[in-house]
Amino acid sequence: MPRPGPILIYSIYQSDLVRFQRLLAGALPDVAIACASTPEVAASHLDDAVILYGWGFPSDMLEQMPKLRWLQKMGAGVDDILQHWRCGRQVLLTRTDGALIAPRMVEYVLGAILDKSMRFDTARRQQDRRHWNYFEVGTIRGLTVGVAGLGAIGSMIAKALRALGARVVGWRRSPKHCALVDELFCGRDALAHFVAACDVIVLALPLTDETRKLFAGDLLSRCRPGAHVINVGRGGLIDESALADAIRKRVVGHATLDVLATEPLPPDHPFWDNPHITITPHVCGPLVPEDVVPHFLANYEAFASGRPLMNIIDIARQY
Amino acid sequence: MPRPGPILIYSIYQSDLVRFQRLLAGALPDVAIACASTPEVAASHLDDAVILYGWGFPSDMLEQMPKLRWLQKMGAGVDDILQHWRCGRQVLLTRTDGALIAPRMVEYVLGAILDKSMRFDTARRQQDRRHWNYFEVGTIRGLTVGVAGLGAIGSMIAKALRALGARVVGWRRSPKHCALVDELFCGRDALAHFVAACDVIVLALPLTDETRKLFAGDLLSRCRPGAHVINVGRGGLIDESALADAIRKRVVGHATLDVLATEPLPPDHPFWDNPHITITPHVCGPLVPEDVVPHFLANYEAFASGRPLMNIIDIARQY
Repeated sequence: MPRPGPILIYSIYQSDLVRFQRLLAGALPDVAIACASTPEVAASHLDDAVILYGWGFPSDMLEQMPKLRWLQKMGAGVDDILQHWRCGRQVLLTRTDGALIAPRMVEYVLGAILDKSMRFDTARRQQDRRHWNYFEVGTIRGLTVGVAGLGAIGSMIAKALRALGARVVGWRRSPKHCALVDELFCGRDALAHFVAACDVIVLALPLTDETRKLFAGDLLSRCRPGAHVINVGRGGLIDESALADAIRKRVVGHATLDVLATEPLPPDHPFWDNPHITITPHVCGPLVPEDVVPHFLANYEAFASGRPLMNIIDIARQY
Repeated sequence: MPRPGPILIYSIYQSDLVRFQRLLAGALPDVAIACASTPEVAASHLDDAVILYGWGFPSDMLEQMPKLRWLQKMGAGVDDILQHWRCGRQVLLTRTDGALIAPRMVEYVLGAILDKSMRFDTARRQQDRRHWNYFEVGTIRGLTVGVAGLGAIGSMIAKALRALGARVVGWRRSPKHCALVDELFCGRDALAHFVAACDVIVLALPLTDETRKLFAGDLLSRCRPGAHVINVGRGGLIDESALADAIRKRVVGHATLDVLATEPLPPDHPFWDNPHITITPHVCGPLVPEDVVPHFLANYEAFASGRPLMNIIDIARQY
């Protein structure tokens, strides 16, 4: 029986594409594999491709792929694809397992917390002035860190912070136990109590109709004065003008944002020169080809042999 | 029997002094307690003080304390005191247990590593220019981190880094097993092999005649190109001009220094404006009064009842 294919690999990052192609071609020598980083390059492969492994493609591209049977998203979030999903059940949608990305996301969150608590900005300013003046630094052991979203990613973040001595509280939609947190808040009604309990709030939620702009003015106003908001989930989780407002009122002390409602963040966006906002260009939880390709290949073998795939998206639940 | 005293508390930081005094006075209401942050203020207490709990005092102050029987150093290092130690055996010398300071030192080391691997400097530069451009960040899981010195502090640093997925190698003077590292190097002869194995080298050694300027030109030249040197031990461990030279040759990629041979670092020191050196003003492992006073009080009770004290300095070994 012929192996399923062709596979179209799509990533807007050329350098990643080369690595994805090399890894897939090495593992699947008998399967046709095409690569694209733009719609123009993809165009000639859309008629034939049965499998799409990618991210960053225009949402209407899928409608031009008559033979598509399986789409594995590069990345843990599929909100961008589901917004325009018209494929129905004949196309299987899977995503990258959050557990593969989680260790690097843990490091980003730790880095963001330590950058503030170690007051490296103060040290840099003093160094610029050749000025030695002792200051007391904070400690993770003195913080209550809230993790909103306790999937594979949020769970690993909670675990790492607790191991370093933080008090960790969690929020999740459904009342499902989580042994990794000191206190668990469940459901929309508990969200205000959750944010009020936190010195640091880490957003690790998927973007769905339920979570879109979940962190709006009413909720942000309930933060502990000076709270540090770290978003590693999706930009759309936050109402950006409400966040700017909460920062202006010093309810939110600092925001470290790796994801934004519009990416790339436009040059005229007011967040850029807000000294209380740190912007990183979606670098956290990167899709490092070497890290994630084995998971795709395992799913490929399941697809080829008709077994159930891992990380299938529940279209109704949106993640 | 009267309780031993008076106690003189000495710290150059006035704000700490207030907290030390409050904590000691609360626990030892029947003991005379004096405080000083300068030699002038200390002068009137030197004749009577039996116990000195402090740091930052002039080394010759001890010679003017005829009744001194016990000195507990605020801090884990006693090199500054031992350099001029003329008290002999009639004065007991103890230090702060490194385990009390270690958790905060772990955070500093993690912060220093993540500040580089997360490329927060690149993010800041891009933010200044309102420029969104993806870059791949590093990961602790890809690093070999070497910890030189596996006492209470070095051990906790090794443990935390290993938990985050780093390969951790250790160096210590004596051939004593350490289960916390993936590979252990022992003794002076193994030091060059140790540094050659590391992407990040963390110095957590005491300063003794043996370790003074241990990290000199011959050793630094054996570093992996681009190595990150983090010094949380003592400034005197490093030959500073050799370090500048190794940075110039790009053998050492970056140095994060919380301790320096001369503190405060003089305004004309060439390290200040070296872009490959991060200077912090000895903020790591701070003597937070609330963290360390219980240890002093436990030692006080031992001293009062003639039991052995904790963390006694071996004058011959120098730590």
